[in-house]
Order: sequence, then structure tokens, then C-alpha cells
Amino acid sequence: MTEAVAGVEDRWAIADLLNVYCEALDSMDLDRLRSVFTADCAVAFGPNERLNAEGVDRLIAALSRLWRWRRTSHHLSNVRIVFDGANAAEVVSYVIAWHERPDRSTATLYGVYRDRVVRTSLGWRISTRRQEMNGADAGFSVGIFPATRRPPPAGWVAPHIDGPATRQP
Amino acid sequence: MTEAVAGVEDRWAIADLLNVYCEALDSMDLDRLRSVFTADCAVAFGPNERLNAEGVDRLIAALSRLWRWRRTSHHLSNVRIVFDGANAAEVVSYVIAWHERPDRSTATLYGVYRDRVVRTSLGWRISTRRQEMNGADAGFSVGIFPATRRPPPAGWVAPHIDGPATRQP
Amino acid sequence: MTEAVAGVEDRWAIADLLNVYCEALDSMDLDRLRSVFTADCAVAFGPNERLNAEGVDRLIAALSRLWRWRRTSHHLSNVRIVFDGANAAEVVSYVIAWHERPDRSTATLYGVYRDRVVRTSLGWRISTRRQEMNGADAGFSVGIFPATRRPPPAGWVAPHIDGPATRQP
Repeated sequence: MTEAVAGVEDRWAIADLLNVYCEALDSMDLDRLRSVFTADCAVAFGPNERLNAEGVDRLIAALSRLWRWRRTSHHLSNVRIVFDGANAAEVVSYVIAWHERPDRSTATLYGVYRDRVVRTSLGWRISTRRQEMNGADAGFSVGIFPATRRPPPAGWVAPHIDGPATRQP
Repeated sequence: MTEAVAGVEDRWAIADLLNVYCEALDSMDLDRLRSVFTADCAVAFGPNERLNAEGVDRLIAALSRLWRWRRTSHHLSNVRIVFDGANAAEVVSYVIAWHERPDRSTATLYGVYRDRVVRTSLGWRISTRRQEMNGADAGFSVGIFPATRRPPPAGWVAPHIDGPATRQP
Repeated sequence: MTEAVAGVEDRWAIADLLNVYCEALDSMDLDRLRSVFTADCAVAFGPNERLNAEGVDRLIAALSRLWRWRRTSHHLSNVRIVFDGANAAEVVSYVIAWHERPDRSTATLYGVYRDRVVRTSLGWRISTRRQEMNGADAGFSVGIFPATRRPPPAGWVAPHIDGPATRQP
């Protein structure tokens, strides 16, 4: 019984962890951002190695690149937690990451975080994160890992509809 | 006491259910998408009957139309669950549904899901879903049910403000 | 033990409170909107005093200004609750607030709510709210409080990268 309750409270703690990442990144509070990760974390944003980092020191140094943006806003949702024992969990979440350049042009990412989080003596931390993207607007051109989307089966034909195809959800 | 804890864990299970819908739709994993619904589900997207489906077989066949899009991303938030006994609940949630066409043009829906979910032997499932929309961008032209918005009372006059009206939130 | 469970259920009740704000605002159900706040609430949107209100009567009168918009959609996420005793909490949340004018032009805010909520005999209520913004699109021009973003340290130099700066996340 106690364990069941702990599990529920852990869910909120893990969701808070992901939220603090967003808050710390949008406020560029790098000390707070550091507190989200394990010392030996591994974070991968895309196939280009300069987008990836191993160890929290390298990660925080890498994320300082966000000062290139004038402002950012990371809206996290769809948080789905699957526990792997009492002290670890796999977490999938979605993010709308809005970025504004100094010239006021913007870039918006429709992303997916795939995280492993672990319970440490200091609380839950992200130990590995892989960022994927479902898509992005035309202003965003970073080489984030594309999320997997299954192709239609061979021979698939769009169902007949009245009116233009673009009028379907 | 046990029931209270069950209720809290059920909330996470129901939120996960809605999240899996988004993940399965964005990855076009139709088998996984099927697992979200009851066999006799009824789903309505709009007044045009071709947007609606009864029974999970027809629903999944209908949702295969999303292959017309090149990519999609469904960002779910504002999940509010009202239990109706221990084995059913009414759920309201919001979605930002981003769609990209093969020509890279996009369509974004600001939608609301109104669901009834039920506990089955396999876990929580959506038994009925009605999609409404608060709005959409100019690229989106599907006839989704409009959400209800109350008109101002007769004789309502916008309060006097200094500066243009568009500068008010 | 009972307290721990109550805490978890309170988290959902507080999240629901913030969700009802969005639902009531988007449907312009001002009676329902009123139910979200304490009678003596204080809400501040920006440095211009006409954007702020003390007391629920003035607040609801002020929020009637949203009828100037044709439609709105408030997508709430990143809800992080820190309890201050059993009967109060500080809550940070993010909002993507989409607004459409009668001429169909739109304005989107990437906002942050900083709330204090309190437990009353009628349930949880917002007693103070401060809205900040991480950013907004070009269509939005209201003077919302800017969120704090730390500047780079003196002498900060963007790390050398291959390719244009805008290709970094």
C-alpha cells in the first residue's frame, strides 16, 4: 500500500522534473538546468554529434548555445511514465518548442522526448534523453532525429471522399 | 482508502490512454491505435457523416486517412477527468493537432476532445469520443464540430480602453 | 498516510482548477470562470494597470473583454505544484493562448501563469495570479509581464559550430 502511494507521488515528481527542465531552459538558469540530470547523463538531439553530449558538464556547456535565441518557450505535454522497478522509469513526452531569434523570426519544433529517469539520493534525475521530432515549421532547420512514422501498407489507396483531400482531419 | 488510491492511479491510466492515442496516431501504428478504443466505440469528428465512425474496425479504417498527411503531431493537455462510478469517466482534454501535407504546407487545429472512457478487462478504453474545435489556423479547413462559445449579453459594450482593442489579452 | 493520499488528490483538483479556467474562458462562461477564483483574488497580467484586477467582480468584468476576440483556445501544460502547508500551494504552469480576431487574424501568446491557490470550503481556488510571457508571435502585442531570462555571462562567446547558427536547437 505504501508502495502504491509512493508510485503515484513519484509520477508527479517525474513530471515536475521534466517541467523544471523547460523552466530552467527558458529562463537560461543553467545551475537549475544542471539539477535535472545525473552526472553521467547522455543526451542526444540528432545524428550530428555536436548536438549530443555525455556528462552533465558537457551537456550544460552545450545547452548554453540557446543564448543564440532571443527567447524560447518549451510547452511540455503527453507525459507518459512507465516504471522499470521502483527506482527507474521510461518516459515519453511531447514538446512544442518555440524559439525566437534576435531578428524576431521564429522556429517551432513539434518534438518528442524519450527519457530514462532514475531515483537518486537527491531525487529523480534524467539519465538519458533522446529528442525526436514529429515535425517543425519552416523556420526550424536543426537536424533533430525524426520520429518513426509507419508508411502505408503496399497498395494502400486513400479512401474515396467527397471534396478535396485536404479537408479531412 | 484502497478505492481512493485506485482512483488516483486510474487518473494516470486514463491520461496515458489519451497519450497513447496521440503517439499511435502520429506514428501511424494502427494496431496500437486500435488498443485505445472499445470494440463498439463511437467517434464523431464533425457534422459530415464521413468524419464519424461506429465500431473500432470502421474507426481504424477511417483514421488510415491520416496517411494523406506527411507528418502529424498531437499535443494533448488540459486533461480533466470526472469519474462516473468506479468504472467509467467523462474526460475533457485539449489538443493542438499539427498536420503537414506532402507539399509541406501545414494545418493546425486547436481542438477539444470530449470522451467517455470505461474500465474493461484489458484496462481503460475510449468508448465515445466527440471532437470539437476552439479554432484552427487558416490552413485547416475540416468541418470539425465548433466548441460552444457564449455570445456577449444583449447590449454588451466593450469597456473603454486606451489604445487599440487588439492590445488587450 | 491519509494526508499523503489527500495530497495526491489535491494535485489533480488543482490541475482541474487551472483547466476549468481555460474551458470557461474559451467558452466565455463567466459564471463558471468566477468559480475558479477567491472573492478577494488579485490578478495581474502586465504593468499597465488596466490589465490587472483586484476582487473577483472586477476580474470577471475585466475578462469580459475577451469577447473582442472571435475565438480563443488556452492550452495549459507544465503544471508544477509546490504545496505550502496543506491548504495552499504555489503553482507554475505554461499556456499557449491562441486568439482569433473578428477579421480572422490571430495572436498567439507563449505564457506562464504564476498562481497561489488556496483550499476553501468550496474547494481549491486561485487567490493570486500573475501572468508572464516567454514570448508571442507577431500578431500579439499586449503588454504582458516578460518572464525573466538570464543574460549570458560577460564575455560569453557562442561555441564554434559548423554551419549557420540558426541550425542549432
